[in-house]
Amino acid sequence: MARLADIAAQAGVSISTVSKVLNGRSDVSAETRARVQRLLDRHRYIQPGGSGGLVEFVVNELDSPWAVELIRGAEEVVQRAGMGLVVSAVHGRSKLARQWVDALARRGSLGAILVISELSPEQESALRKLDIPFAVVHPAADPGPDVPSVGATNWPGGYTATRHLIELGHRRIALIGGPPQRLSARARHDGYRAALEEAGIAYDEALVRHGDFEHELAYRHALDLLALPAPPTAIFAGSDHQSLGTYRALRERGLNVPADVSVVGFDDLPFADWVTPRLTTVRQPLSEMTAMAARMVLQLLAGEELETMRVELVTKLVIRESTGPA
Amino acid sequence: MARLADIAAQAGVSISTVSKVLNGRSDVSAETRARVQRLLDRHRYIQPGGSGGLVEFVVNELDSPWAVELIRGAEEVVQRAGMGLVVSAVHGRSKLARQWVDALARRGSLGAILVISELSPEQESALRKLDIPFAVVHPAADPGPDVPSVGATNWPGGYTATRHLIELGHRRIALIGGPPQRLSARARHDGYRAALEEAGIAYDEALVRHGDFEHELAYRHALDLLALPAPPTAIFAGSDHQSLGTYRALRERGLNVPADVSVVGFDDLPFADWVTPRLTTVRQPLSEMTAMAARMVLQLLAGEELETMRVELVTKLVIRESTGPA
Repeated sequence: MARLADIAAQAGVSISTVSKVLNGRSDVSAETRARVQRLLDRHRYIQPGGSGGLVEFVVNELDSPWAVELIRGAEEVVQRAGMGLVVSAVHGRSKLARQWVDALARRGSLGAILVISELSPEQESALRKLDIPFAVVHPAADPGPDVPSVGATNWPGGYTATRHLIELGHRRIALIGGPPQRLSARARHDGYRAALEEAGIAYDEALVRHGDFEHELAYRHALDLLALPAPPTAIFAGSDHQSLGTYRALRERGLNVPADVSVVGFDDLPFADWVTPRLTTVRQPLSEMTAMAARMVLQLLAGEELETMRVELVTKLVIRESTGPA
Repeated sequence: MARLADIAAQAGVSISTVSKVLNGRSDVSAETRARVQRLLDRHRYIQPGGSGGLVEFVVNELDSPWAVELIRGAEEVVQRAGMGLVVSAVHGRSKLARQWVDALARRGSLGAILVISELSPEQESALRKLDIPFAVVHPAADPGPDVPSVGATNWPGGYTATRHLIELGHRRIALIGGPPQRLSARARHDGYRAALEEAGIAYDEALVRHGDFEHELAYRHALDLLALPAPPTAIFAGSDHQSLGTYRALRERGLNVPADVSVVGFDDLPFADWVTPRLTTVRQPLSEMTAMAARMVLQLLAGEELETMRVELVTKLVIRESTGPA
């Protein structure tokens, strides 16, 4: 395992610069920070004799492959800083969330990363009273200008996925989207619509369904769409789970993916590369998002200002086997 | 949310009995403990004003849907006891594992749950020096008589899966197993063999392949098996991931599941119920296993003796769509 001096030598900087990056100090250029961070990441550098302090990671549910991607990014950054990541699930219950704030105070945690779909005013004020830095990942609604948050570029994700289908010659492209009250789902929907309009394809409400990011409802929506007088030749699903529900509906109707109908997902969870056909999907950098949130918390802990309160990490279309010519 | 008194009333016991169960005390009958525990679970009861102490959860990698199942069980029990679960990944590196023991000491954690594939003598002795209770989940090798451990009933799992295929009329049943150096993989293999022998079917080494529990190698093993002069009509895969690799090989060869070849997996991860066809698999109670390990640690923390140092939780065949008549 590399020592601090090795990392400094490889990055071509001083040890004190590496140390500044480790401690989230802002007086390092973005370019140098990125280079040093890559080396720290590659060597999984852990700060010896770190504070031993704790950072909290709070998620609604621990019930999906999503959760492990999210934990991984935060765990790597927090462990490398010589600290511990305390993982809690609040099961969407405000009472549990209150108890969690109490527990956090008792434990003397130094910071928090929240992946809860909504930060209630009550929770936010409780956290503010404790006066510890926190950051919100993948916020359901706009967290406001004072709350550090990390998301993904959802609008470009929706746009790129739809554009890919249009380039393959598809004209009847359906959307099985996420819950419309979630910012991320709305942005993906609008990206879909923008790509259609740009290509001169009329937005057809009959081809748009709203789901819950889960498998079952997407399955039923897909069956409905296939029963239309003019069914779609391509379906853009709002999540990888929704893509699997769509796969099921297509197989039950005897339709082949992608020969009869193309499918694009969103997330790029590990199983996207294992299912048959391998799923074309928009990669959402979940572990990078929580790693970034953890770095923001460490930076605030070090008494530094954040460059920005809101970061969106880039999504990327990963083309596999589930999309083909119309 | 239920108070302690409500739980006691519903269970028909005194508040002090509920409190004993919460604190892992052994002077409660197994039957009463189970009844109270079920109610505590159902109401997600959290001990108010718990110690605020920490329990460590250490896993090799945070890279699979496996990990979230494992974290969930431990998190529920630890959170309910008013404590925090610190999650760390050691990436299979002994150096990281040493640093982790240092971090644990610095944090003053009260106990540890280890889901690392091997507990090195060095790690064990470091943990023993700290004198904190710990339990090992899903041990790769026999952890020895002094180490509390929780596993699944792997032999009966292998036996039941194979029996199910035999009852469907299959005679040429292949096994794509896990790494033979892992206890769990060996036990599943032996259960497979026992079911064959019981049915008077000769064990054929040509039909047995060893994998790594992962998708890719299983895919190649399945292609090999299908190229045999007398290919199998059923494949028992050592994990759900291996089943997906097997699905891929079958589709590429134009074979239908289960009409041409039946497939059984092992684990019952959430995606087993989403893939097409839905996977028949042996359910391994991953979250219950870490919940049990967490309870053992709490019991040891309360100064109680464990009833047993080694617990195996029951596996169960879940029949879905991937198995059919030979």
